[in-house]
Formats: sequence, C-alpha cells, structure tokens
Amino acid sequence: MLFKRIESKGLAHYSYLIGDGEQAIAIDPRRDADVYTDLAFKAGMRIEHILETHRNEDYLIGSPGLAARTGAKIWHADSELKYEYGESVQDGQEWRIGGLEIKARHTPGHTPGSMSYILYNEDSVPWMVFTGDALFAGDVGRVDLLGEKKMPEMAAMLYDTLYEKLLPLGDHVIICPAHGSGSVCGSSIADREWTTIGLERQLNPQLQYSDKNEFIDKISEMQERPPYFRQMEKLNIQGRTILDDLPIPKPLDVKAFAQQAKKSQVLDTRSELAFASAHIPGALSIWTDGLASFAGWFLSYEKPILLTNSGPEAVQTVRTLIRLGYDNIAGSLGGGMLSWHTAGRESFSVKTLTIQDLCRQLDKGQEKWILDVRKQQELDSQGKIPNAHHIHLTQLDQHLDEIPTDNTITLFCGSGLRSMVAASYLQQKGRKNAQVVLGGLTGWNSSTCSIK
Amino acid sequence: MLFKRIESKGLAHYSYLIGDGEQAIAIDPRRDADVYTDLAFKAGMRIEHILETHRNEDYLIGSPGLAARTGAKIWHADSELKYEYGESVQDGQEWRIGGLEIKARHTPGHTPGSMSYILYNEDSVPWMVFTGDALFAGDVGRVDLLGEKKMPEMAAMLYDTLYEKLLPLGDHVIICPAHGSGSVCGSSIADREWTTIGLERQLNPQLQYSDKNEFIDKISEMQERPPYFRQMEKLNIQGRTILDDLPIPKPLDVKAFAQQAKKSQVLDTRSELAFASAHIPGALSIWTDGLASFAGWFLSYEKPILLTNSGPEAVQTVRTLIRLGYDNIAGSLGGGMLSWHTAGRESFSVKTLTIQDLCRQLDKGQEKWILDVRKQQELDSQGKIPNAHHIHLTQLDQHLDEIPTDNTITLFCGSGLRSMVAASYLQQKGRKNAQVVLGGLTGWNSSTCSIK
Amino acid sequence: MLFKRIESKGLAHYSYLIGDGEQAIAIDPRRDADVYTDLAFKAGMRIEHILETHRNEDYLIGSPGLAARTGAKIWHADSELKYEYGESVQDGQEWRIGGLEIKARHTPGHTPGSMSYILYNEDSVPWMVFTGDALFAGDVGRVDLLGEKKMPEMAAMLYDTLYEKLLPLGDHVIICPAHGSGSVCGSSIADREWTTIGLERQLNPQLQYSDKNEFIDKISEMQERPPYFRQMEKLNIQGRTILDDLPIPKPLDVKAFAQQAKKSQVLDTRSELAFASAHIPGALSIWTDGLASFAGWFLSYEKPILLTNSGPEAVQTVRTLIRLGYDNIAGSLGGGMLSWHTAGRESFSVKTLTIQDLCRQLDKGQEKWILDVRKQQELDSQGKIPNAHHIHLTQLDQHLDEIPTDNTITLFCGSGLRSMVAASYLQQKGRKNAQVVLGGLTGWNSSTCSIK
Amino acid sequence: MLFKRIESKGLAHYSYLIGDGEQAIAIDPRRDADVYTDLAFKAGMRIEHILETHRNEDYLIGSPGLAARTGAKIWHADSELKYEYGESVQDGQEWRIGGLEIKARHTPGHTPGSMSYILYNEDSVPWMVFTGDALFAGDVGRVDLLGEKKMPEMAAMLYDTLYEKLLPLGDHVIICPAHGSGSVCGSSIADREWTTIGLERQLNPQLQYSDKNEFIDKISEMQERPPYFRQMEKLNIQGRTILDDLPIPKPLDVKAFAQQAKKSQVLDTRSELAFASAHIPGALSIWTDGLASFAGWFLSYEKPILLTNSGPEAVQTVRTLIRLGYDNIAGSLGGGMLSWHTAGRESFSVKTLTIQDLCRQLDKGQEKWILDVRKQQELDSQGKIPNAHHIHLTQLDQHLDEIPTDNTITLFCGSGLRSMVAASYLQQKGRKNAQVVLGGLTGWNSSTCSIK
Repeated sequence: MLFKRIESKGLAHYSYLIGDGEQAIAIDPRRDADVYTDLAFKAGMRIEHILETHRNEDYLIGSPGLAARTGAKIWHADSELKYEYGESVQDGQEWRIGGLEIKARHTPGHTPGSMSYILYNEDSVPWMVFTGDALFAGDVGRVDLLGEKKMPEMAAMLYDTLYEKLLPLGDHVIICPAHGSGSVCGSSIADREWTTIGLERQLNPQLQYSDKNEFIDKISEMQERPPYFRQMEKLNIQGRTILDDLPIPKPLDVKAFAQQAKKSQVLDTRSELAFASAHIPGALSIWTDGLASFAGWFLSYEKPILLTNSGPEAVQTVRTLIRLGYDNIAGSLGGGMLSWHTAGRESFSVKTLTIQDLCRQLDKGQEKWILDVRKQQELDSQGKIPNAHHIHLTQLDQHLDEIPTDNTITLFCGSGLRSMVAASYLQQKGRKNAQVVLGGLTGWNSSTCSIK
Repeated sequence: MLFKRIESKGLAHYSYLIGDGEQAIAIDPRRDADVYTDLAFKAGMRIEHILETHRNEDYLIGSPGLAARTGAKIWHADSELKYEYGESVQDGQEWRIGGLEIKARHTPGHTPGSMSYILYNEDSVPWMVFTGDALFAGDVGRVDLLGEKKMPEMAAMLYDTLYEKLLPLGDHVIICPAHGSGSVCGSSIADREWTTIGLERQLNPQLQYSDKNEFIDKISEMQERPPYFRQMEKLNIQGRTILDDLPIPKPLDVKAFAQQAKKSQVLDTRSELAFASAHIPGALSIWTDGLASFAGWFLSYEKPILLTNSGPEAVQTVRTLIRLGYDNIAGSLGGGMLSWHTAGRESFSVKTLTIQDLCRQLDKGQEKWILDVRKQQELDSQGKIPNAHHIHLTQLDQHLDEIPTDNTITLFCGSGLRSMVAASYLQQKGRKNAQVVLGGLTGWNSSTCSIK
Repeated sequence: MLFKRIESKGLAHYSYLIGDGEQAIAIDPRRDADVYTDLAFKAGMRIEHILETHRNEDYLIGSPGLAARTGAKIWHADSELKYEYGESVQDGQEWRIGGLEIKARHTPGHTPGSMSYILYNEDSVPWMVFTGDALFAGDVGRVDLLGEKKMPEMAAMLYDTLYEKLLPLGDHVIICPAHGSGSVCGSSIADREWTTIGLERQLNPQLQYSDKNEFIDKISEMQERPPYFRQMEKLNIQGRTILDDLPIPKPLDVKAFAQQAKKSQVLDTRSELAFASAHIPGALSIWTDGLASFAGWFLSYEKPILLTNSGPEAVQTVRTLIRLGYDNIAGSLGGGMLSWHTAGRESFSVKTLTIQDLCRQLDKGQEKWILDVRKQQELDSQGKIPNAHHIHLTQLDQHLDEIPTDNTITLFCGSGLRSMVAASYLQQKGRKNAQVVLGGLTGWNSSTCSIK
Repeated sequence: MLFKRIESKGLAHYSYLIGDGEQAIAIDPRRDADVYTDLAFKAGMRIEHILETHRNEDYLIGSPGLAARTGAKIWHADSELKYEYGESVQDGQEWRIGGLEIKARHTPGHTPGSMSYILYNEDSVPWMVFTGDALFAGDVGRVDLLGEKKMPEMAAMLYDTLYEKLLPLGDHVIICPAHGSGSVCGSSIADREWTTIGLERQLNPQLQYSDKNEFIDKISEMQERPPYFRQMEKLNIQGRTILDDLPIPKPLDVKAFAQQAKKSQVLDTRSELAFASAHIPGALSIWTDGLASFAGWFLSYEKPILLTNSGPEAVQTVRTLIRLGYDNIAGSLGGGMLSWHTAGRESFSVKTLTIQDLCRQLDKGQEKWILDVRKQQELDSQGKIPNAHHIHLTQLDQHLDEIPTDNTITLFCGSGLRSMVAASYLQQKGRKNAQVVLGGLTGWNSSTCSIK
C-alpha cells in the first residue's frame, strides 16, 4: 500500500496520493503536479482517479494538468458549479484501488457541495477520512465564503456534517485534511501533523460547544477574503491552467531589468534584513514562507512580476507564484542585488530598530507614530504596545489616508516579517520614513522596558 | 564561465552548454532538454541561442522544445534543407555571450552543410571547436550518408575541412565533437573523453594518410544505415517533436498487459541473463545500454511499445526511446515478470552456454549451427570461431532464409549481449532452438579449448 | 513539529525521529544512522535523546553511533541486561522536547523489560504511542524468545500490557510500532502503514480472543529463531558497533575475485532469473528484498562475503548486510557477471519451469521429487501441491539427508524467489539437479492444470 | 575511462579522479573526501593510489582519510619533509590504471619538491598533465613561500620547470592544475576552466617574458601569507586529520547561544546586507564564498566557532571550515537571527551607502574618513577614490592604530563584500561608526559623480 501526504509549504496545503496494487488515486492535487506522477511512477502505479474535496479558492487545482498527463478521471465536488471539464462526484460514490475502497460523503458547510472521502480497509472498517476544508486539526472550515447572510446556514450545515457524518466514523479514524497550520483557510489550525477523530473530539476548540446554536454563533465569523480568491475560483472552474513545466524566470542584466521594472512589479523575497539594508526602489518585500499568504493581497495579476533573486533561490518563489496563478514572471535580476550595486544603481533602505532601541525611544518620550499590522485576534491574545495604531497588514490600502506622510512610522508585527512587507508597501505609497521593529511583539514580550 | 558537456548514454551523443555572464548557448541539444534549462537556471543564465552542427540523423534534435521553453533562437546548419522553423547559420556568423565569442565555420563532408563552431577567448585566440560529426576523437565523420555515388565527393570535402579549416586552428585547441565512443555515427571513435587538435593530429588513424587521395580512398566506406535514420531526418526538418514531459509508461496488470501485447511490440530491457531464464513469448530483448544502437533496427514506429519493467528501472529506457522518436509507449508490466509468473502465465526461455560448454560440444564434434552476429570489422580484428556462419545482427531479417528452422542455432557475438537480441528475434521468427554463448568471442579468446 | 518515520526495507523496521523547537528524540535508530542526523540537521534540531523500546535481536541498534555523533543520551529498555554503555529507562520517566512530552511505560511481554513511549501533546492528551514489538498493525509481539518454558508467562505479561496499558490509552491514539509488514518479528503484521488503537481493537486478530487464557493459548507459539539473533543480542549489549561510513565493497577483477572466492562466501543478489541462467559456482542467491530475512540463516559471520554486483546496485545490499552486522565484505565482482563470462569462466545455472511446464510434467506422470520450501502457515492458508515434500527454507540444513542427491528436485515456494535461494543452497550441497517453478503456489492457484 | 575534476569552491581548489577498468587514482584530494569514494563506487572502481603534487599550505589534504577508507597508497611530493605517513614519490615513478599510464616528473619552483603527473594514453602520447601549483591557467605558482631570500632561486627553478619540463610536452597537452580562478595560491589565475599547454604558451602573461632573468625578476614578489598556512603545513605533515563525517553544528536556543558566545568567536555568513541590518554584537561577517579566503586571517584555531545560521544553509560553511582545519564548531543559532530578535535581544547594525549617497556626501564636502581595503594590485588596475586611505583587509590588525576611533569610517572595496568583513572587524575593535559603500569601486566606476 502507498500512502503519501504532499505538503505545499506556504499554502500549508495537503494533498494525498493513495495506491494499492498498480492503481492510485490523487486527492486535491496542486498545480505543479510532478510530485504525484513521480511518486506513482516510482511505486509502479498508475493514477486512475483525481478526487476533489471542494471548489478551491486559495490555490489553483492541479487536476486538469494531472489528468492530461496520466489519463486519470477528474471528480469534482461542489458539482452545482459549471465546471468546463471533469465529472461530478455523487454522494455515496465508490472507487476501488487494489484491495482498498474509497467512498464519497457529502459534507457541506465550508462550501455547499463539499465532499469527504472515506478510505476503508479490506474489512470495510473506516480507516482514514479526507475531510478537505470541513475539519482540520484544531479548527473547522470557515463558513463565510458565501457571504454574511448565508453564514448561519452554512454553519448549521457544517455542524450536521461534523456531528452526523464525520465524528460518528469513530475515534480511531485518521483525519487527512486539506490544510495544516498556517493556512488562510482556517484561522487557527493546530501544529498537529497527524490526528484522529478522537483527538479532535477532545482537543479541537470548535468541537467543545454545548449545542448547535452555540456552534453556529461562535464559528460564524466574517474573515478576510484575499482578492485573489475570486481569480482562483474562476480559473478552477475553467480548468485551462495546465502547467507543462515550471516557468524559468529569465535572468536579466541590470539595464534590461531596470527597463522592464518600469512596467512591472518588483518582488523581493530575500530575508527581511537584507531588504532593509538595500533594495530596488519600489520593490515589494515578502519573505519566502509568507509569499503564499500575502501575494494575493499585494500582487496584481495584470502586471508582469520581476524577481530580485535568480538561480536556485528563486525556485520556491516560482512554485508559490504559479500555484496562485501568477504565471507572468517577466525575469529576474541576474547576479542579484550585488550586480545592482556594482552597476552603481540607487537603492533604498528601511531603518530597523531592536526592541531595546524602541524602549529607549519610548522611555525618552520621543514621539513616534507606531503602527501595529497584526490581526485583531493576535492583539487580543498576545497583547499590544501602548499607544500604537492598528491596521491589519492586508487592510493597509483601505486605510492609507490614516497613515501620515510626514512622520516616522514605526512598524510592528509579531516578529518583524510582516512589518517589512508593510514598510515596503508604505514606501511605494510615499511614506519614506517607515521603520521596522525587529522581533515584534514576541520580542517585546520577552524583554523588559520601563514604559510597559 | 560555464562549460558543460552533456552525454546521452547509449547514443554516445555529446551536447554542450556554454555560458558567461547571464547568457548561454546550447549546441546540438537532445530532445529531453530539461538538463539544459536546469543547468542554465542554476547558473543564473538564460539560453539565448541554439546552434546545430548538422542535420541529425541518429536522434531527434531538442531545438524546437528548448526554444519553446526559453525563447532562444534556433540556428540550423545544412540550411539548404527546408526546415519548417528556426533560421540558417551563415559561414562566419558570430555570437557573443558575455566576454566570449563564437564563430561559425562551414565544415562540410559528413553532410554538405555541416558547421563547426569556434569558441574564442577574450583575446580572440581559438580555444575550443565544436566539430559536430566532422572530427571525433580517433575518427572522422562518415561520408556515406548521401549514397555511394556522392561518397568520394563528400570525402574530398571532409579532407579540405580537416586540413584547411580544423587542423590549422592549432594543436592547442580543445575539440568538442557531437559523439563519443559507442556511437553509430563513427565506427571507431576512441574512448578519449577529452582531446585536442594536437592529440588528434598524432593519434587519429584517419589523419595519418599520405595524401588526399589515400584519405578519400580509405574513408569512403558504405556503412550500415539504420532504417530509423530516415524518420529522424524527416522529423528534425519538421520540428514538431516538442516534448513537454517524459511519457510515463502506465503499469498494467497481467491481464491488460497480455491483451495489449497482441497489438504491440513487447520490449524487454532486463539483463540478458534474466531474459534467458524467462520472458514473455514474443518479447524482444535489448539490454539498456544497447537500446539506442539497436532499437532503430528492430522496433517499428507504427506499433505501440510495451515494457516489461516498470518503476524507476524504466526511466532510462523511456529516455532512450523518446530520443529516437518512439513516443508510443502503451504501458509497462506492473510488478514486472514476477507478476507474470504468479499469474501462472506461460513464458519462454533461451538456453545459455558457457565457453566451456561450447568447447566440450566442439570437442565431441556435436554438430551445431553456429551463427556469429558481429560486424565484419570485428571478425577481422578479433578473430572468429571455426566453421561459424556469419550474419551481422542488423542484417538478420534480410538473411532469414539462410537460417535453419529445425536445427539448434548457437549464437555468438562479442560478449553475449547482441546474441541475446538475435535469439529473441529468431524466436519471434520461429527458430525456437536458438541458444546463446555467454562471454562471446572475448570469452573464447580468454580461454583454452582443444578445438582451437 | 517534526515527525518522521524511517523505514528500513527488508527488515521492515520502523524507527522514528520526533522534534519540536530545536530538540529532537530518536526512537530505535538503525545502525546506518546518517538518516537521523540529516533530517535533524535540515530541520534545525539537535538530537538529545535516543530511546530504545527493547533489546533488539533482529538488527544492530544504531544508538552507540548516533550518540557518538550527536552527543545524545542513550536510554535502554530491558535494563536488567548488562549494557556496557548508556543508561536505563525507568517506568514513568519523562522527557520534554519543545512543547511536547514523552513518557515511558513498562510494557513487558515480548521481552521482560520492553518499554513503550507515549507522546503527549501540549494539553497532555496521549497522541501517539511507540510500542516497539509489543503491538503491531494486525499482530502482537512474539513471546517465544525466552524459550518454550517461559512462553506462557511472557504471553500473560503481554496480555496485561495490551489490555491494561496500551488499549486504555484510547481509540484515538496513533500507534507507531517498531516493525511493519514483512518483519521476522511478527509473523503476520498487516500492510496497514498507519493505524490507531481503535483500529487495532477492531481489526487485530490477536485482540479478538474471549479472555486472557485463550490469548495465552493462541499466541504462545514457538517460532523460528534465526541463528544470527544471538549475535545481534550480544553486539547490542556491547555497543561497539559504531559505523563511521558505509563500507565500500572493492571491485575486484575476475582473477582476484576467483582467488578471494576460495576463502569467502559469494552472495548473488541479482534477480532470481538472472541467477538461474548463469552464476558463479558456489554462489548463494538471495534477492535484494529478501536479504534481511534470509541472510541470517545462510551467511556465516566468520567468512568474508563477496558480492557479484558492483556499483550503485550494491548499495542496498551493503546497507542490509551491515544492519545485520556483516561488516566483512571482501569485495565485489568488477564489471559484474559480464566480466566473468568475457573472461571465459565457468558458470552454473538452475533450470526454471513455468507452472504450465509443471502441469505438463504432472499430467504425463513424469515423476519428480517436488520440494515445497514455504512455511507451514502458508501451506495451511494457501494450499499445497499434491505429493510435494515439505521442508521450510530455513530448515533445509537440518533435513539435508532427506533430500535425494541423484534425483531432479523441483522446488516450489510462493513465487519462485525463495525456491531460488533453496536451489542455490542445494547446489552448494551437491544437488545439481535442483530446478525452480516460477510463480510458485500463487501461480499454481492462478492456473488450471488437469492434475489438480 | 573516468575523468573527473572536483572543484572545492571558495578555495578554488581542483582535485582529480582518474580511472580505467576497475582502478582509479586520486590527485590532491580534499579533506571531506566522500566525493571521491562516491564517484569511484558509482563507476565500479577502487581507488588504489593517491598522488600529491606538493605540500599543501592552503587547505588540509584528504589523503590520510581517503587512504583509511579505501586502502589506497599515499604518495607524497616534497618528500624531504618528515611525513608521518605515506610514501615518497620518486622522479620518473610510474603507475598503471587499466590501459593508462601516469608518470611523475619533478617540477620544483613553487616548492622544492613539487611533482607533476603526466597522463599518457595507450600509445604513450602525453595527454594531460597535473601541474599542481606549478602552472595555472593564466598564472604560475608563487615562489615566495620559502621567504624573500630564497625567492630568486625558486623562481629560477620554476623557469626551468616550465621551459624544460612542462612546455616541451607539446601544445596539445591538456593542463589540470590544482587551482582555478579565485585561489590564494595564484594571484591572477584566469577564468579559463579548461586549458592546454598551447593556450598557456600564447595567453599566460607569465610565459611572455623575454628571458629567464626577466621571468625571475617579474614573478619574484612577496605575497601575503595567511597565518593559517603554517597550521595547514604542520597538520598535513602529521596526517592526523582524518574526518569520519562532517561535523554537525548543534542548534542552540538563544540563551545557550548567548552563553556560549562569551567564550567563542561568532561567525556570520549571511549576505552582507542582512548582516548590515542586524547582527549579533561582536559577530564577524564573512560571506560564504569568501570564507575560504578570509577565515584564515580572522578566525583563531583556539576559540570555538559559533554559526548564526542553522540548517542546510550551514552546510557549505561547515565544509569550508573543516577544509581549513577549523573543527571546533561549538554550535549554531537555532531559528537563526529571527529567534534572536523575537527573544528581544540587542543587535548591532552597519550603515550602508550607495555610490550615489557617497557622491552626494563628497559633493557637499562632508568630510569622511574613507578607507579602501582592496589589494594594492587592484588599486593599480581599477583606480581609486580621491583622498581615500588604504589598508588591505588582511592587514587591518597591523595598522589598527592608524584608524580613528571617533570618526565615521567609510569602507570601500571592490563590491561591498570585503568592506563588510572590515566593518565587522572594526566594530569588534571599537570603531562603531564604520559604514560600507555598496557596489565598491566597480559601482564607482559605473556611475558618474561630479567629484571625480
């Protein structure tokens, strides 16, 4: 038997490949699907079916490409949508691979047509359940995607899904969700790589409410919806996003890069500290592991993208971008920032402060405009800095006019990473004096400062 | 500076990637071109030009695919041909990559429009020369491809190429040919991985003749021309053979395999000894490293191909097949031969003899019909077995009626590998009693036998 | 959090690496321990503790080497043994790694001092349990290692371990045993890579008995005990088996190999079919995946070992051998069997029959001495061939005088693999006419034969 | 035939593995010798001899470790030294590997006992020559290692070596030196990866002098001699530096790291820009590719080393350090600099200027103390900044009292990399106001600035 979980970092997306004998099934494959064909090939198996747990809104599904390459059949959940390819799963539908059996269950709530897939062993005992975005380790799926009005209805459906369909499978069943910790699809997924129904029954905060009403009440929360979700949904319906090979960002010399930069968005995924010292004027800073979460808020699909890294360091960046449908990568800076500087070009910097620096400034009462870009939740749970303003990183563009242009802006987040994203964005928007506190609130909480 | 030689085993084909700064050039790329894009990407370079040294007849050129993926320009030699893509090289044309310069020289002989490319260093001293099939280590290009009538003319052209264009570059120049030892494009290429003009001047047997006439006389030899050459030439002209990904042979269960086998050609690339013990009735044996040389003689382009290996062992087989344009791989035997046997299926075998067994038989005067399938050249240089018949492996189909159907046929080659190809072919043609001498003439020459 | 299961193929041995923050723990590491240091290094973690679940008898434990390389502490179970290194685990002992907690439980039965390790999450809920050889997927540990007399006592202890300590952890707990399907440590471990307490409660045949007495009765069974177990136990106590690097078998030319072979045991791990066609006289055939199970029965620790494969194909062979303490690898045959034959050397063969061949012989009443080398269990469950003699492969040496020397011996197993081991052994012992039925009983059961 | 050149980046050191049949020879192996055993193993060869071209002063030779692992014989050049292991090469000594022949020639000049090894092909024509540090692409070996007094004598010997022994081998011979571009062993080795005697005769500036006297005069130049050379020489004589495995720097948490840092030297190999933004107080900045050249000037062998990177990024750092004999790596910062900041720790920064910033300052006449840390040669060839002071990076400690403590020091090199090393060193020495010009002189020369 073959059982592989494939993690797409950044997206914290889990897909699966299950096989027995010569047959295999892929569940929720990602767009750069070479990993599935490689694994199946090495195991001497052919992928016969591709099962989707729900319409995906946070990444491009790899089903069309994987089907084109293997001849596998695509089975869509959320089948009321007008998919231009593949077939619709039916509740109760079954597939056999070798000695194993997989059965579809309709498990709505996150979306109206969400499906879970139950893997039975040879004795027809439920063994694993692929829950998509219905049930995670430590969280349940968000129910706000159809809008505020529909939310209670979706939450009620999810309650029934959980309590009538998933939990009754039994404590012993291993849960295989579509996301792990760090996803935009569940706000507080736990760092528990492997879990079971029984563990979730005991540990999942969302499964501890007294009744259905409390559940509906507590989980019905409008969450942020990155603008790129709409793009993903549309493209996933059309299925025209087959990827033959990973795009290769062409290394450009400094002059060609500078020329191309005029009509492009420059993305800088180097460490936040390197960005702070020197970066190409106008570049956006997003650290590699944060790219999947924040690209969709800050990068446009219309403008070409330029990378400031070239060579192997750019591989993870490219993979993340194409999973989000950013195929228009116009090039990279050959030789990296060193070539920029040895060409005598201008670069910008962002001032960084340590926690101690901040304390000293606060002690002296040197007035600064402190801006905390964390989520509201984090403010509630981790605490905050006295007198700080608060705008969540993803909301900066909507509150731009609240941010002064003539003052030093001291940025603050959990660790310094998101602050640097904010600093780069604010520089683009004319706030030249944005500076970043290294260590962020975690550092603040670890240190002593008389002002606290 | 980047300089990489890429060897395609089996074909003994050399291609090259040369780069400086952010620019790179590929010379004679192979069809599965991932290796060039990977190398260039890691080096932070973009491939801008693809240079071909001549029309290729022994493999599918990778220029169309590599150009599609990188945007590089294709430059054809032999430009009197009606290429449906790319541009024609001009004699004397120059390219710059970083600080390096590459210049085309018309070096006809192997083909009328063959080009060599001379790499100059920054001081314009010739440094390396990419000779295609004009000059190899220990050999020169064959001149028989345009037919017997044109041969002397081609040989004369090659003489001028060598003595007026290549050797005058200077003893110090490093030679980068399109083939190494083992190619079908030069009958006696030396196992000298790196060589120079000066080394060839001294060591290459074809550069030791007293004058042009002797050269023409000695090298004008009609050699075998595998039937697939024509297919390669046609497809290379059309350029429609872009390969997105390596095909994955689908593992089939025994029943499906047996069904498919009826309308397919079964290719068995396991070791010749495993084939001898048991193989699928009708299967053709070609060992992995011999596939590039012999597939073109024994495999048809019309019929689908089935492989008896699945999983990673099949990778090299698939690469070789697609380099020769055999894209129609219908599947592989899931679980390999073990699954065939545990399904209770019939298999065939080939009897093997050691040299000692053969000696004992010869000593006893037990009459056997011995068939030596080596080339004439090998018979001349290595010697032969007394009373053996001789038909070169690739000529078996044309001399089939000379081979008895009712007698035991004892096959003989250099080592036993080609004999097993012959045995599998003769089994297909009703000679059930073909048997193979292990060790072949090399073993014969190493041992003592009173009959000798 | 880091959780990795490392499988040692052949041994079907599972070891584990668990980490959080910068700390990691290894459980039952194998001797070639590079895999743990690599994984920890990539994750930015240091291995601080090495936990053993029990004295290991079927492979060399990697604790001494891993401790030497990392500075980790070794914690032995079965602590009444006189370990010459490391420290003894106490029942109830706890370790912290990052936010996780691991606790030892004394779970005797397989051995008197077996330990299980329970991993708790941050809320102190039991999450996973590392059961060593106490509880597997589909089986429980064997209880015969201390001898027949102690068996009921051990079985009773195991019952209490299972019903009082392991099952009460809860259905939701994930089980991480020391072996998977194919191990010599559990005769019928299921092919269920991931399992839970609840799944085992329902599916494990050994957990379905009505009471303790029936359990003791049913599982108390003397199983085979390969002779190498004693060697492993002794060496594991001494801990002097640190391995700096994998040994590299030196490729020898044919003459040197033949010379060395006189004082060595020649091991041939090529496919059973290649062995059948031709092998070095006196060589022992064990296929790669069977090596861990059968080396300990057929290879001596005193004599040097020679391999007939060289190059990368030998890597898995070497890894398996050193895991079993066979460090004395004297060399390999440079160029493989081809070089043997081209040197004109003698080789032996083994005749192979298909199931159809066998049927035809049986139909004709051609008397053969059929020898089935499967386990008794397999005979009971899969059935047998009429009139076959039966000696389990591992018992051949003790029943050698029952096997005729002048008759053809037709060997039979499940698929043909073990039969070839037997054929090679019998050839060593003067039974020149051993022949092997391809497909074995599985093939027999798949086909029709009038004799059945 | 096997021919592999192995490059050790940073050191720009070339070693070689040559094989034929089952035999191989290694020339000047590096200390982490896994690469040779891997390559030989894959090729099915055994390493029988290890040839050294000369005493090595710039890295630890891998001969003792490679011999221990393979049983190969070690052959030392410079055999008047009291080597505690291995044997001495004799002038004219020969080795055979398969069909190839290698012959030693005494080629003194760089050291008194330097040897070159000439590879002959089967026809006894010289094919390649392994010249050690006698002859490079574009340069010849330095002759100052025995001191100023001996220099003319050494230069004279080198002249004879070149003109009587190496050049007469013939223009066609391929040169395989011990170093490529970037080594500390030849001040101006060319970026010409492959070269021949004929190419060097034409292109090598050191081979263009009119006679022996001019040669001696021109090449007799005292060059810098990093203090670690003495350590390397001593250890290479003793041969006790066998390396079983690469050391693994243990990731430490912030507190343990800070504690250990008090008695250690903290090495920071992140990009110079990241270092500039924030680094651990007292850390030394050397970028990864510069480590081999500068570690020997700035790191002590007595104090433990701490790394600020952990995980895979540290691999190259560790390899470089152990090649230089820095085995005492006490640990790494778990979680990298992010963990340092989220622990609320203090960090230091280095101000960076672009070329434009510098121009503006110069234009305004804002007086700064500019310090150029390039080599004299570079000043001569690339030009310099008006009014800059000059101390070569490696001489800073000897001229420390010339550098003001109360002024801003504006550091300048070729690109900004060495300036950051200087800045980190000067910070350690109390010059808090060191700042670095990005792009260095290359940037300066690319830009316009009214002050020029």
